[in-house]
Order: sequence, then C-alpha cells, then structure tokens
Amino acid sequence: MNDTFLKACRGEKTDYTPVWLMRQAGRYLPEYQKVRSKVDFLTLCKTPELAAEVTIQPVEILGVDVAILFSDILIPVEPMGMKLEFSESKGPVLHDPIRSAEAVARLREIRAEADVPFVADAIKLLVSRLKVPLIGFSGAPFTLATYMIEGGSSKNFINTKRMMYAEPELFASLMDKITAAVINYLQAQIDAGVNAIQIFDSWAGVLSPLDFDRFALPYVQKIIAQFKGKVPVIYFAFNGSAMLRRVVNSGADVVGIDWRIDMKEAISALDNKVAAQGNLDPCILFGTRELIKDRVEQILNGAKGAKGHVFNLGHGILPETPVDNAIAMVDAVHALSSRR
Amino acid sequence: MNDTFLKACRGEKTDYTPVWLMRQAGRYLPEYQKVRSKVDFLTLCKTPELAAEVTIQPVEILGVDVAILFSDILIPVEPMGMKLEFSESKGPVLHDPIRSAEAVARLREIRAEADVPFVADAIKLLVSRLKVPLIGFSGAPFTLATYMIEGGSSKNFINTKRMMYAEPELFASLMDKITAAVINYLQAQIDAGVNAIQIFDSWAGVLSPLDFDRFALPYVQKIIAQFKGKVPVIYFAFNGSAMLRRVVNSGADVVGIDWRIDMKEAISALDNKVAAQGNLDPCILFGTRELIKDRVEQILNGAKGAKGHVFNLGHGILPETPVDNAIAMVDAVHALSSRR
Repeated sequence: MNDTFLKACRGEKTDYTPVWLMRQAGRYLPEYQKVRSKVDFLTLCKTPELAAEVTIQPVEILGVDVAILFSDILIPVEPMGMKLEFSESKGPVLHDPIRSAEAVARLREIRAEADVPFVADAIKLLVSRLKVPLIGFSGAPFTLATYMIEGGSSKNFINTKRMMYAEPELFASLMDKITAAVINYLQAQIDAGVNAIQIFDSWAGVLSPLDFDRFALPYVQKIIAQFKGKVPVIYFAFNGSAMLRRVVNSGADVVGIDWRIDMKEAISALDNKVAAQGNLDPCILFGTRELIKDRVEQILNGAKGAKGHVFNLGHGILPETPVDNAIAMVDAVHALSSRR
Repeated sequence: MNDTFLKACRGEKTDYTPVWLMRQAGRYLPEYQKVRSKVDFLTLCKTPELAAEVTIQPVEILGVDVAILFSDILIPVEPMGMKLEFSESKGPVLHDPIRSAEAVARLREIRAEADVPFVADAIKLLVSRLKVPLIGFSGAPFTLATYMIEGGSSKNFINTKRMMYAEPELFASLMDKITAAVINYLQAQIDAGVNAIQIFDSWAGVLSPLDFDRFALPYVQKIIAQFKGKVPVIYFAFNGSAMLRRVVNSGADVVGIDWRIDMKEAISALDNKVAAQGNLDPCILFGTRELIKDRVEQILNGAKGAKGHVFNLGHGILPETPVDNAIAMVDAVHALSSRR
C-alpha cells in the first residue's frame, strides 16, 4: 500500500508530498455524475457498492494518494432521531430542529454498526479494493449542533448562539449527546478498517476564539483523545485561520488549513506540534496550468518547515471544476515535491 | 461636537473608548421600521430627509459617539451604468453582470455630485443637525467588482476569480474604473461635510492573502492615498483576520477587526501602526446583560495596547437584535472604559 499519506500525518519523512482533494468524489467528475444520475444523494451514501465505486473513482482518475469514504457529515445525526433530507436548492434539511430540553432529551444514543450498517459495509468493500489508505470522517459536534438547532444551513447561526449564550447547560447536554454519537460512529469506521479519520468542523469559523474554546473545542478534544495513537486524526476547523493556535490544542495529528492564510504563517502558528493539510483556493483550478503550478509551488515552499504536509485544497473542490485541472494540480504536487 | 471618535481614529488619548455599531441605522430599530414601512430600501437611501432621519435615530436612541450615513455600499455602481435592485429574498441584484471587455468598456465615469446628489444633500442636512461626527462610506473596489461580475451575492465567487485568473488585464481595467468612481464618490462626501470615511471590503475575505495583495489591496491603497491627512480613513476587510499584517498596508488610519480573532492578537498584528475598530460578535447581543458586559470588558482589555480603539461589532447588527441589549452594550463600553 502507498503509505506516503500516513507517514506525512505522523510527521515522518516522505519521498514526495502526498495529496488529495476535499470532495474529490463528487459532481465535477462525469463518472460520478453517471452513478449519481441513477439515485439520489442519500441513497448513494447508503448503498455500499455505489458509495465504494465513487470513492475509488478519484484515486484512479486523479492519482491521489488517499481515498476518503463517500458519505456526508450528517449521517450520524439521522439515527439520533432526526429526519434528514437533501434539497437541491437548500442543501441539507433536518426536520423539527432541536430548540428545547425535551427535544434534546428525545435524542437517542447511536450504535453505528446496527444503525448505519452501510458505512462499515462500504469501508469493508473499499479496504479490499484500494491500494491507498482510506479516510473515514464525521462532522464535528459544533458543526452537527448547528444543523440540528438551525434545521439546516444558516447565515448567522442565531438560534445556535442564542442557545449557547442563554441556555449554556442545555447546549452542553446537546453537545455531550452528539459527542457520544460521533465517538461511536468513528469507532465503527475504524473497526471496519479506515486508516485515518477527519473531523470536519465546517462552521467552527463562525465562533469567536473565546467561544470556540468554550463551546466547540472541548468536545473535539474528547473525541480525539479516544482515538489518539490508533489512527491519524485530521481536524479541520474551516475559517478558523485566525485561531490556529487554539485549533492545535484539539490534539489532532494533522490540522486542516483553509486558503485564507499564507501556508508559511499557518505553519508558524502550528509551532511544529502537528502536521498541516492544505491549502490551495479551490478557485485556482479555474486558472491556467501555469497558475496552478505556480500556486502549488508557493504552498509547497510555505510548508517546508512543517512537521508534515498533506497537500489539499483549502475547501471542497467545486462542481464546475475542469477535471483536467484537478489532475494537473495532483501532478504538480507530485512533480514539484519530488524534485526538492 | 463630541470628538472622541475622531481622536481615537488619530491615535490620540481619549477620556473613554468611543463606540458605534455597523448597520446601527437599521431594521432592529422600531423607529427605523416605521420610516422604512413607507418606502422601499433604495428610495430610503435616495431621499435625503428620510436618510438623514434614520441616520440620526441610533445616535439618540443608543447614545453612540458617531453617526454613519444611511446608504448602501453599491450606490456608486448605479451611475456607472448598471441597474441596481434590492430583492427581499436575494439581496442586491445588478442586472447584466460584467463579464466581457465590451461590458467593462461601457461603464461610465461618475460625477457623484451630479449623479447621486441625494448623498451630498443628506450629508448637508446631517452636518447641521448632528452633535457627533459623521462617517461617509463606500464599498471597496474588490467588493464592488464581485457584485458587478456575479450580478449579486455569491457563494464561491467563481466568475470573479475566473476573470482574475484567466483575464487579469480585463479584471485590472474593471478595477481601475471602479477605483476612479469610488474616489470621486468619497470626495463628494468629504466635500459635503463627512468627518471620516469607511471603506467596506465585505468580500476581501474570500481571497487568499496572495490574491488580496494582487487583486484588492493596490486599489484600496490608491483610494486611501487620495484622502490621507484630510479625514480619518477606516478600512474593513471582513473575514481578513488571518491577513491583518497585509491589511495594515492599506494606509488606513483605522483597521476594522471582525470577531474571528482575539482583539489582543489583532492589536499585535497591527504592530502599533494603526488604530483598531471592533470586534464583538453581533450574536453576543442575544445573550444576557452580564454576558454583554463581560465580553465588552474582554475586548477593552485586549485593545489596551492599541494605538487607538473604536469599539464596534465585528459585523453589522442583526435585525433580530433586542434594542435594549444594543443600548446595554454602548453603556458598558462607556462605563468600563471611563473607569480605567
């Protein structure tokens, strides 16, 4: 197996910088579109054979160094007792948002192996077929809480923050329940065979650093403590570039970096404690090959002092991205990092 | 006239920390709602007597130390030749977005005094009535360009970035035209009597630091150089907290800080070169009085080493905010900063 990615996560020397792309299994690939045209998004997540098929596609088409299970960050929320839907226009919708002690009390503990068996099934299929490591993942508790409280995406997260500020104990009890579910869910993925896990805190960046420390970080720390030393853990607090010194305290082996910060400054904030993953603006893939190569090189140079570096975009690849440019990016990372 | 705000902008000692709130004239105030119920948003912007009335409201109701002209960042775009509308659901809409050399060529130079006379008229009314300074403002060139290219708000700014990367000369010619319009527009406001100006770069934070330096900052620098020494200039690059060291290079007297960074760390990035404005999370105003006071105090303490500090929210006040909590915030800033 190509273990370059796992080595980089652990801060070991590698022959070249490993690379993958967030949302690499997705709408920009015609091969994905073909599979997706037959089923809706959630059915695709819940059908192991199909989820495995689209997970493998970018490994073969782009030549990335690691696969990530095709799934959604909200999968562990459904067995807690919420009805999840995906709307083309509004994105994820969770019915009957959680706004009261009664609603929190009704949330169930999950047993992922029984509740979402399709996840472990897809992982088992993949482990037998892949020649690169497989990343499992979950949404982070704060991010899952925002969806559960707001009922979907939000602009200002008023309901979430109102609960944080006005009913901190209720918010804490919700976060405890989500944290337990995430631990169970990630453990099931590890048991099924994933080689690393990523915790996506997609909305951590709406919090002030003080609130991040109080309302998000302790729950992430609890999760990561469970898995420390078992598999590498990547924590990505999107839009948290101005509080990386706090993000490092998560205990993760690798910290995801979005494109809003110079890689060199990010590495300096990480203080050589953890490896870095990132951080190309996904929109650079709409530029010329020359631009792509130039920006890849800038990031590789910026990451030179890192404990370890996994090249990635600073956010998910966009559906409109030309596939050839994604391939050019992967090739540039491999070529430019091997030469050094 | 209460000159505490202007002193703080210039880095001079003040008896207490001056405070205002972005969007302080707005929907959270019943008095504003009453005026707004009679006319649509753009008509309100374009009717000097009404614009002046809602500009004064928060000065009287909240006791803030400065007024900001009620207007919109997109006002200078309409006389350039684009049709501007405000939709309740989609926000600002600019018809026939700018995507070609022909479209850029068609954009007109503006002469703000003749093209948007209602702006100077409102300012003149206000100057005679206010006992606090008045801030004039404009959108920054990059932010205005995103609206002009995307045709409104955007999620990923693909069209804007595609033009930046694939047609950098076209993008530069568009930015030159916008920059000239903004200079003319702000000069007209100064001529009419505003005491300070703020340049809102609401979307600067979607740029990587490298792109900010290349595609946004030079135009802001050009504008600020025009007004340096005439009136204090505040530059607010929203969501740019991970690149404040670059934002300082704008030449502004005051840099706006959003809530995504600790005030103390922000002050350190400003390196004592400029004053700071910010940075309370607007959602804190949904919390208890105790929380509001506590967080105000944290920010005042964090800003202690600043060259100057203007207290503000880290983003616009939200329509759902209880007015009493906004008043409590203003009172807390005054009380806690006078005692020190």
